[in-house]
Amino acid sequence: MAAHPCHRRGDGNPRPSLRGCLQRRGASKACVGWLLAALLLSPLAQAETVARVASPDGRIEVQLDLNGEGRLAYRVLRDGKPVINDSRLGFIFRNGRQLLRNLRLDGQANTRADTTWEQPWGERRYVRDHHNELRAHFVEKDGDHRRFDVVFRVFDDGVGFRYEVPRQPALEQAQIVQELTEFAIARPATAWWIPALEWNRAEYLYRRTSLAEVGLAQTPLTLRTDDGLHLSIHEAALVDYAGMNLARGGDGQLRVMLTPGSPAPVVRATPFATPWRTITISERAGGLVESNLTLNLNEPNKLGEVSWFKPSKYVGVWWSLHLNQQSWATGQEHGATTENTRRMIDFAAANGFRGVLVEGWNLGWDGDWFANGWNFDFRKPTPDYDLTGLAAYAAARGVHLIGHHETACAVSHYERQMDSAFTLFRQLGVEVVKTGYVCDAGQIERQDTPGGPILREWHEGQWMSNHHLRVVRDAARHHVAIDAHEPIKDTGLRRTYPNWVAREGARGMEYNAWGHPPNPPEHEVTLVFTRLLAGPMDYTPGIVSLTGRDGQEIQSTLARQLALYVGIYSPIQMVADLPEHYAEHPQAFQFIKDVAVDWDESRVLAGEVGEYVAIARKQRGAPLWFVGAMNDRHPRTLALALEFLDPGKRYRAEIYRDGEGADWRGPARFRFVREEKTVARGDVLSLWLAAGGGAAIRLVPLDG
Amino acid sequence: MAAHPCHRRGDGNPRPSLRGCLQRRGASKACVGWLLAALLLSPLAQAETVARVASPDGRIEVQLDLNGEGRLAYRVLRDGKPVINDSRLGFIFRNGRQLLRNLRLDGQANTRADTTWEQPWGERRYVRDHHNELRAHFVEKDGDHRRFDVVFRVFDDGVGFRYEVPRQPALEQAQIVQELTEFAIARPATAWWIPALEWNRAEYLYRRTSLAEVGLAQTPLTLRTDDGLHLSIHEAALVDYAGMNLARGGDGQLRVMLTPGSPAPVVRATPFATPWRTITISERAGGLVESNLTLNLNEPNKLGEVSWFKPSKYVGVWWSLHLNQQSWATGQEHGATTENTRRMIDFAAANGFRGVLVEGWNLGWDGDWFANGWNFDFRKPTPDYDLTGLAAYAAARGVHLIGHHETACAVSHYERQMDSAFTLFRQLGVEVVKTGYVCDAGQIERQDTPGGPILREWHEGQWMSNHHLRVVRDAARHHVAIDAHEPIKDTGLRRTYPNWVAREGARGMEYNAWGHPPNPPEHEVTLVFTRLLAGPMDYTPGIVSLTGRDGQEIQSTLARQLALYVGIYSPIQMVADLPEHYAEHPQAFQFIKDVAVDWDESRVLAGEVGEYVAIARKQRGAPLWFVGAMNDRHPRTLALALEFLDPGKRYRAEIYRDGEGADWRGPARFRFVREEKTVARGDVLSLWLAAGGGAAIRLVPLDG
Repeated sequence: MAAHPCHRRGDGNPRPSLRGCLQRRGASKACVGWLLAALLLSPLAQAETVARVASPDGRIEVQLDLNGEGRLAYRVLRDGKPVINDSRLGFIFRNGRQLLRNLRLDGQANTRADTTWEQPWGERRYVRDHHNELRAHFVEKDGDHRRFDVVFRVFDDGVGFRYEVPRQPALEQAQIVQELTEFAIARPATAWWIPALEWNRAEYLYRRTSLAEVGLAQTPLTLRTDDGLHLSIHEAALVDYAGMNLARGGDGQLRVMLTPGSPAPVVRATPFATPWRTITISERAGGLVESNLTLNLNEPNKLGEVSWFKPSKYVGVWWSLHLNQQSWATGQEHGATTENTRRMIDFAAANGFRGVLVEGWNLGWDGDWFANGWNFDFRKPTPDYDLTGLAAYAAARGVHLIGHHETACAVSHYERQMDSAFTLFRQLGVEVVKTGYVCDAGQIERQDTPGGPILREWHEGQWMSNHHLRVVRDAARHHVAIDAHEPIKDTGLRRTYPNWVAREGARGMEYNAWGHPPNPPEHEVTLVFTRLLAGPMDYTPGIVSLTGRDGQEIQSTLARQLALYVGIYSPIQMVADLPEHYAEHPQAFQFIKDVAVDWDESRVLAGEVGEYVAIARKQRGAPLWFVGAMNDRHPRTLALALEFLDPGKRYRAEIYRDGEGADWRGPARFRFVREEKTVARGDVLSLWLAAGGGAAIRLVPLDG
Repeated sequence: MAAHPCHRRGDGNPRPSLRGCLQRRGASKACVGWLLAALLLSPLAQAETVARVASPDGRIEVQLDLNGEGRLAYRVLRDGKPVINDSRLGFIFRNGRQLLRNLRLDGQANTRADTTWEQPWGERRYVRDHHNELRAHFVEKDGDHRRFDVVFRVFDDGVGFRYEVPRQPALEQAQIVQELTEFAIARPATAWWIPALEWNRAEYLYRRTSLAEVGLAQTPLTLRTDDGLHLSIHEAALVDYAGMNLARGGDGQLRVMLTPGSPAPVVRATPFATPWRTITISERAGGLVESNLTLNLNEPNKLGEVSWFKPSKYVGVWWSLHLNQQSWATGQEHGATTENTRRMIDFAAANGFRGVLVEGWNLGWDGDWFANGWNFDFRKPTPDYDLTGLAAYAAARGVHLIGHHETACAVSHYERQMDSAFTLFRQLGVEVVKTGYVCDAGQIERQDTPGGPILREWHEGQWMSNHHLRVVRDAARHHVAIDAHEPIKDTGLRRTYPNWVAREGARGMEYNAWGHPPNPPEHEVTLVFTRLLAGPMDYTPGIVSLTGRDGQEIQSTLARQLALYVGIYSPIQMVADLPEHYAEHPQAFQFIKDVAVDWDESRVLAGEVGEYVAIARKQRGAPLWFVGAMNDRHPRTLALALEFLDPGKRYRAEIYRDGEGADWRGPARFRFVREEKTVARGDVLSLWLAAGGGAAIRLVPLDG
């Protein structure tokens, strides 16, 4: 007798499992009654664990279940307690039946890995990849008997999983409308998140709400459960696929919502693999920052030797533009002039900064560039910008121009000029190019054939995931590194393409020029535990004038600006303020000149999401350490254990910190002290941070 | 000097307005500081009201603003207080620039309307359409100078608005990726909602959460603000467009999320109008139920005279199937046999019920019909079902077979047979057809050419909005009425096509057969204020046995089952239980035989969302009134003022109510009393309702 499908599903609620009921409602009377009913009446609710994999230390376990209707779910436990409850896996296709039910396990393979690999640059030099992997093969029992694998890699600090769909006649091309992946967070939690698919892309202040109040969020999404466990959900290796967002579903679970595209968010021929869906897990907030999970799930370096990219600092014609003192467009206030740039080159050379970024250097900025990026020419400078002469002027001083390719989202137009533009830049000694995609969400312009129709895409859609890799690969051929602004999210592809060195992808320093409000004190302390988990950010720190347009105060102390160089990791760091402002703060400027940009090691000494953080990093190839600490609007004293210093050595600690009475509001934000102390491993450094404050420390070995 | 677009937007937050800040944070210090900064620095934040329209009674006002960057927003006030804060309007297209900014008002027209129209059947006979309309013409100041109108109609109990886009060379076809419409609810609120785009479509228990905890919701979405105002957000006249869902955005606002489709959720040639986006507003919860806003925004009757549709009751081969006592498929337990159906016809005839629904009557139910709706034949009965003979048997007894067209989502297959299937049915005296679309969300099967590729659609996507109207129009040609299950949401199109008489579209009675859990006591009391605001529901009430499969208790008292006939409106009401069960409850059955199904008038005497409700309805064309009251799990006594009775008349109140100690749990759910009282206008009837209980009353004039 053919049963009505509703019979097979048991109940109409999205989580037809005993476990789900108990987890939602505990052993309440309703639940017990339901339990009995379910046991008696609903064999489908009984799921069977068909595969498992645990972390190397055994504390994290992933279990895969198939229930009575052959539906697959995974769950994650830590020390035996649920972290992720039963969560769905599967796909809705446009061009085929959904891949969800009537599955059976057709084999599994467990492997272990423990390797160490080296980053050509980064927050640390050596990265350990220590995980256990489960590869589970599934096949549909009915229909076309389609096959797919789910691969789980479990690390001591988290889990990554992805789907791998082999070539098969019944699924030659997958048009993925919805990926049914869920993350059913087991406990109530606090969430730090920014909204997805809204006009200002990633440039929002993070919201701190209960998990229950998350609407539609971007990743990384960071959580702290009610029992203090930190989680961050993200993805690794976003290649030829739509970016993943997270929507809260009717049962409180987080569901994947792919960035839109046409004819479907994702179109892939088999065989294909999805990006890795990642859940980083740590008791300490700092553990999220220290994790290498995302990088470890990316493919190894495809570019080979990349010593042509030098982690470095740069200055440029940039802040003046955001202050509205100079313009991108030509005219009396044009910023990108030969003379202005020479001054910048001189300033860079005098202070040992390698790069000079100049925005507005090329044709296309006059008129309404925002509305029409098709006017940009990426190879032709404006008449008042002697590109070739300036490149030579810079070269003679050991300085390199940093290129600027603002597309204003006329992306196909950019792609047509890109290669010759990189060729030109390379000839001129340009090693790094900052790209830009300034336009509202959903306004990327794609034109497959010149003169053909223009279609709109999303910054994090599948088409743009491919565009960015076309850019990065072409740049690599020219030995050019890419710093993408208004980008796609970072998912660790810098491992595979180590010329993809940095990106924006959050509300950055420019908002301190003209934003209403400017970035509040907790913003950067939140970024460290959210945006920065994805990868380096070109935050462009160091605005020592602490003032934006028309006298608007930047909500930061002076010492905080220095801390950003350590707190917010990037292999290229801007010395962003006007030269004349640095002249007013010589002590602070000294730290900026001294701070390293490439590291052997990084560790979080202390921190809580959105409250405060102190990070220590060891300069690559030198025995120096740097510490950066940043604070929200509550003054506090941190006790930092200097256990990272080499034993038996003494160090001079050059401490740049908030002065007495410092505060992010008013003139008090300039209260600033530079002092020195002698310290050694085992010492505990007491560091007072003002409201909206920070501290930056350079530790130099005294002996030898 | 060309400004950076970020300058023009002022801040990076999605709500760059003074009003928004004040409304969110009150006159806090942060807000005042922001206010000053905004006044000094950000002309764009200053918006100008360019158009207004108020309700006839003047209490509700809609204001349209254009801000400094030409971006349009609407807001809704009631008695001068914000109900909806500044909310965005606009579109993201795939095939053109977004329609959002740089708009100017190019004219406006205000009109008033006060008409009354008659429903051929319904919860009331005469409907007053009293509103003020504002039609505002907008044109882009730049680019292609595209034009569109926004039309607002304001009633004393709510607001409806839609976009109208005229034919124009720069926008010949709109591929709408995202409709940017928002509803920025001004106050904290409680929300009753079901999740959108999840596998079980609309068949979820309603969640009651704070508005802040809404994730992605279907409409109607019902709210009660913290100052007691009731709102419901929905749409009217969903024609050739994707169904609207509501997602909570980063600023707490509700944003429209259209049901997916390809190449975009909506593809329309200009000129086109969107559905009306509706906000029903009432101090009383009952006011939402009594509102005619949705119907009034639909086009008038296109079918002309529809007396061939008779509001009526029906029985059928249905509950036995859900009890698993009989089967849809052929075999020993086949429900749809000639003999079973004859018995049903006899039962119907003996009790004055017009219709007999038989499910499983046709070829295609054997095997896994759920997986393959393409096997259904809508014209061929099974060998053990004498369709023609049964039609004649029924006709001789004044009974009509109700047709059943379960598609199992093989929709294109159904469309190919539909017309001949209706022809056949009409010849056999079938007046009503129940259709079905049983499959998971996103699994509708569309095949544009026979043998061609099969694409998947969504139940509430644009393609299905058109499919349903093709069915309804074709059925109308055959004088057949449609009762659609697993349908698209009701948006009032029964006004335009009064043969579209009812639908399911929520978790119905069938879940009481096999659902885990069955429908809890508050479910139906919530449906009245949510699902039922959209239109009639074929809930299939009257399971007087109060028992599902394998003895599972239905969470309802006996009197509650009778109340459903009045509480949950439908012009076709099933007498759903097995005949032998009615024989066990003759008193209750009498009410079911007596209750009307078509009304002159309906009013809510008392009610709170999800708690309790009492509705009074006057039988159409007769001086009888019926009252239905339903209760959540908290026993209560209602004091119902019988002010609706005709003055100067006495009525016999035939009261069917919960007996002493009645309760939805256990044998106590059968405690039941029938009593009579004489009442008159002005009396207050005290009505005790058990936990999970109800009452049904028939009021018959005593004099003349």
